[in-house]
Amino acid sequence: MTYCVGIKLNAGLVFLSDSRTNAGVDHISTFRKMICYEQPGDRFMVLLSAGNLSISQSVREILQIEELQEAEGKEPITIWNAKSMFDAARVLGSAVRHVYHRDAEALKHAGLDFNVSFIFGGQIKGEGMRLFLVYAAGNFIEATTETPYFQVGESKYGKPVLDRVLTPETPLDEAAKCALVSMDSTMKSNLSVGLPLDLVVYEANKLQTDRVICIDADNPYYRMMHNSWGQKLREVFDSIEDPVWDGSASEHPLKMPAARHSPLRKISTPEEKLI
Amino acid sequence: MTYCVGIKLNAGLVFLSDSRTNAGVDHISTFRKMICYEQPGDRFMVLLSAGNLSISQSVREILQIEELQEAEGKEPITIWNAKSMFDAARVLGSAVRHVYHRDAEALKHAGLDFNVSFIFGGQIKGEGMRLFLVYAAGNFIEATTETPYFQVGESKYGKPVLDRVLTPETPLDEAAKCALVSMDSTMKSNLSVGLPLDLVVYEANKLQTDRVICIDADNPYYRMMHNSWGQKLREVFDSIEDPVWDGSASEHPLKMPAARHSPLRKISTPEEKLI
Repeated sequence: MTYCVGIKLNAGLVFLSDSRTNAGVDHISTFRKMICYEQPGDRFMVLLSAGNLSISQSVREILQIEELQEAEGKEPITIWNAKSMFDAARVLGSAVRHVYHRDAEALKHAGLDFNVSFIFGGQIKGEGMRLFLVYAAGNFIEATTETPYFQVGESKYGKPVLDRVLTPETPLDEAAKCALVSMDSTMKSNLSVGLPLDLVVYEANKLQTDRVICIDADNPYYRMMHNSWGQKLREVFDSIEDPVWDGSASEHPLKMPAARHSPLRKISTPEEKLI
Repeated sequence: MTYCVGIKLNAGLVFLSDSRTNAGVDHISTFRKMICYEQPGDRFMVLLSAGNLSISQSVREILQIEELQEAEGKEPITIWNAKSMFDAARVLGSAVRHVYHRDAEALKHAGLDFNVSFIFGGQIKGEGMRLFLVYAAGNFIEATTETPYFQVGESKYGKPVLDRVLTPETPLDEAAKCALVSMDSTMKSNLSVGLPLDLVVYEANKLQTDRVICIDADNPYYRMMHNSWGQKLREVFDSIEDPVWDGSASEHPLKMPAARHSPLRKISTPEEKLI
């Protein structure tokens, strides 16, 4: 599997992806799931992918040359000349549909769904930053102030910390830290997500970035974050009072109801009726 | 959906379940997913269920009267006379198969899978505590020292904290706190899991319990835990250094690679080759 997260803040964009793929647990490989498209001063875009690797690789290949012909005689739209991220996302959607037409039926014969999804975000000169989630049908949705992030792949383990921390006002580096904590929780509980990680941080209106890093187990920041988070989480856990059942010594008792009167069904003898 | 967790410790057993069910987001109801079976001094068992509510309710109904006929002339095994939790789990598996034979084909015609799973644990006089995960086929697995807990339903959000905290040596009340934190993280990120909660804590070899509680939003312990966990998690998050890109002022730099030399594919002009 995969875990990727893309975050849109007032201050910029953050993209993080893992690099583990698997076809069954006995066939685990490392493939990068992030790719950046940059024309410094004109456009900066990042694509993160999840799902069937043969599909996502084909889409990435085709995206380079995909052209969206809007009207006869007009220059076709590509990701390199699109005037807006919305148009660039349409080009990506079109590339997805090309691969669908080429491969979906053969995959179906093999019992496989056409399973792929993308996070695609960036900025093109003349408009603000935008972040999209592109589905296997080539359709897409855009991140908003209320929902400033998208996840693809194994998204559930790492969602609570994103929900607790992220708002559009979150500073860029804090959001990068949040994404790394989210990834760390995911790797703790799911073997199908693994190092190395790719992290890109983009500052609003720069139209290029040099904050691109591949993070492996030796990265000093990742090691510090991984160890501190685990240890401090444990300290916080320990600092919260255990439940006290009799309630006598606690400010926060778990009051014990008479089991008989609890709305919970407690069946005490085989003869007692169920309902 | 549903979230239930069952934990087996040296000191006893902990069971926690939510009570939300939904058939689409516009049809949300409250149904309890926990049921206790108790003959004080002889046996104490708890059943948690997830999946299709019509199936799990039918299984619970049938389980009361299910009989496993081992051999001609021998008394059939029920959950009330089983000599071991293993045999009781077999009776449960048999009840699941009865409902399968009754309903699975009609469900299939309606496009529905036979989707159900159970956590079933407890203690019968004469043996130690045991904890089982029972699948839709009526087969089951048992918790061990290495894997002291089972989850059913929306299990991913709340898994990291269980993985970080639980061992067989964890004290009972600490494990109850851990289950509540796990549930709290799940409810934070998934609307299909909701209050009230049912919590049962069973102390080893007691063969009964009075630690049975229904927890709603007014419960003082749950409120304290919910608020403290959210706030302290945020404090821990803030206490971890943000990544520093230039590395000059930090012990733990995110070193910046030259983007060109990063193994990440960064495509800087449309003419550059993809591979």
